[in-house]
Amino acid sequence: MITLLKGAPAGAALREKASAIIEALKEKGVTPGLAIVRVGEEAGDLSYEKAIYKRCGAMGIEVRTYAFCGPTDEELQAQIRALNADPSVHGILMMRPLPKGLDEASARELIAPEKDVDGCGSASLAGVFTGSGTGFCPCTAQAAVEILDQCGVEIAGKKAAVIGRSLVIGRPAAMLLLHRNATVTLCHSRTADLREAVRGADIVIAATGRPESLDSSFFKSGQTVIDVGASWSEAKGKICGDVDMDSLIAADGNGGLDINVTPVPGGVGAVTTSVLALHTAEAAARQNP
Amino acid sequence: MITLLKGAPAGAALREKASAIIEALKEKGVTPGLAIVRVGEEAGDLSYEKAIYKRCGAMGIEVRTYAFCGPTDEELQAQIRALNADPSVHGILMMRPLPKGLDEASARELIAPEKDVDGCGSASLAGVFTGSGTGFCPCTAQAAVEILDQCGVEIAGKKAAVIGRSLVIGRPAAMLLLHRNATVTLCHSRTADLREAVRGADIVIAATGRPESLDSSFFKSGQTVIDVGASWSEAKGKICGDVDMDSLIAADGNGGLDINVTPVPGGVGAVTTSVLALHTAEAAARQNP
Repeated sequence: MITLLKGAPAGAALREKASAIIEALKEKGVTPGLAIVRVGEEAGDLSYEKAIYKRCGAMGIEVRTYAFCGPTDEELQAQIRALNADPSVHGILMMRPLPKGLDEASARELIAPEKDVDGCGSASLAGVFTGSGTGFCPCTAQAAVEILDQCGVEIAGKKAAVIGRSLVIGRPAAMLLLHRNATVTLCHSRTADLREAVRGADIVIAATGRPESLDSSFFKSGQTVIDVGASWSEAKGKICGDVDMDSLIAADGNGGLDINVTPVPGGVGAVTTSVLALHTAEAAARQNP
Repeated sequence: MITLLKGAPAGAALREKASAIIEALKEKGVTPGLAIVRVGEEAGDLSYEKAIYKRCGAMGIEVRTYAFCGPTDEELQAQIRALNADPSVHGILMMRPLPKGLDEASARELIAPEKDVDGCGSASLAGVFTGSGTGFCPCTAQAAVEILDQCGVEIAGKKAAVIGRSLVIGRPAAMLLLHRNATVTLCHSRTADLREAVRGADIVIAATGRPESLDSSFFKSGQTVIDVGASWSEAKGKICGDVDMDSLIAADGNGGLDINVTPVPGGVGAVTTSVLALHTAEAAARQNP
């Protein structure tokens, strides 16, 4: 049986936490402010932005977008400096990756650590690596683990395979699972036998970014699979995850496959914006003690 | 056949690099300076310190020790601030772990990033996590990988198991191997089946700190094992690595075991002080461009 782990309950739990913080801020006369910095009009960025406005707006977070078309590094950095200095902005989310030609590393480092709600700068990443709790974890990586918790999946002592080693998802997710006492294998495009590595795990975090690239031969009964992928599939003409769900359904019909897997859409994506709302509320609270 | 991978050649190669930098600094009238900050008289710290004086002293690095007995956090931090401000000090090595009761995290963060030659602060650790090359990698973790390189062990595409998840060895070593395209499994005290995880790997980095805790049943022919352990064994009455070498020798006699393994002493330890010398030389060069 294929059990779909929907993101909605984890998202709701996170928003409840965020709302309590936002209520307390309101009593102090503080409205949490989130600034989105976007370069270009990439479809994925626009759809994420729309979801942020809907989710964060409904919770009383003031969201503003600073959109650029072909900026120089100086222009982009001047904007980040201005947002760092603006007391009405408590969180800054820069859509990544930036278009080629821009110095993304410098832009990331420029974001004030206390406003780095998507964990893109050194202070936050060091906090994720060390487990110190300093800064913020990249939202999507945290969303993956929030779903495991909400669904009651045990992490300690389990084998986890993380597919993909980006700084946005793979590496931070691996560290979150490690801090929770999982035995973590970091897999990637150069992994010699990905199938073997993934099949050996109890928990799989899939973040390859290649739609439907993982068919049923990668999985076995008893696993929990968090599908972080959300890419356009030419074959299907829609947004798909990394997991080839049709193949899993066929395998289940043909001999049985007992597996828990997050759907796309409605899985991790539904939780990421709620993590962002929580981080923004927390950032505003820290900046207004 | 058990092949011992000695650290000496890797150490010599690193010192050659360091010497070239130190020569160039000499022409500028700069002598690289390394400050050791030590609290207490822990035997391992004293023996490491002795090795540093011998190795770095012979290379023309000026080493000074600032030793404390029961300092307050304020006293320790005042010393670090003074060393940060001292232009004759280019590298600061704080012996870790600090005795209980001291705020190690604050002391680590206080060390100026450009002088953090053992990679203990956020800037260096973020550099290790992201692979940006910012800061310095913890010396022992780097020493483990330097031996692999010096011995011509291929890393890309191989399976690596790292046993131990400390910030001094396990986690940074895992990141170095990941950046070199290994598929890395992070194992630790809560790993359910350590034997299975270690036996499945091509490269093993052992950093459990439990002397002779890994007998031949953890290994198989064809593996390369870097033994970072160096702990006092009550049973043997000497410093031993994590690997039970007697057990490996017995297994080799009894059916054959073809394995490459670093000896203790004479393996990783022999390389660590050379990595420290190189980092100190590099730090001095960066501070005197």
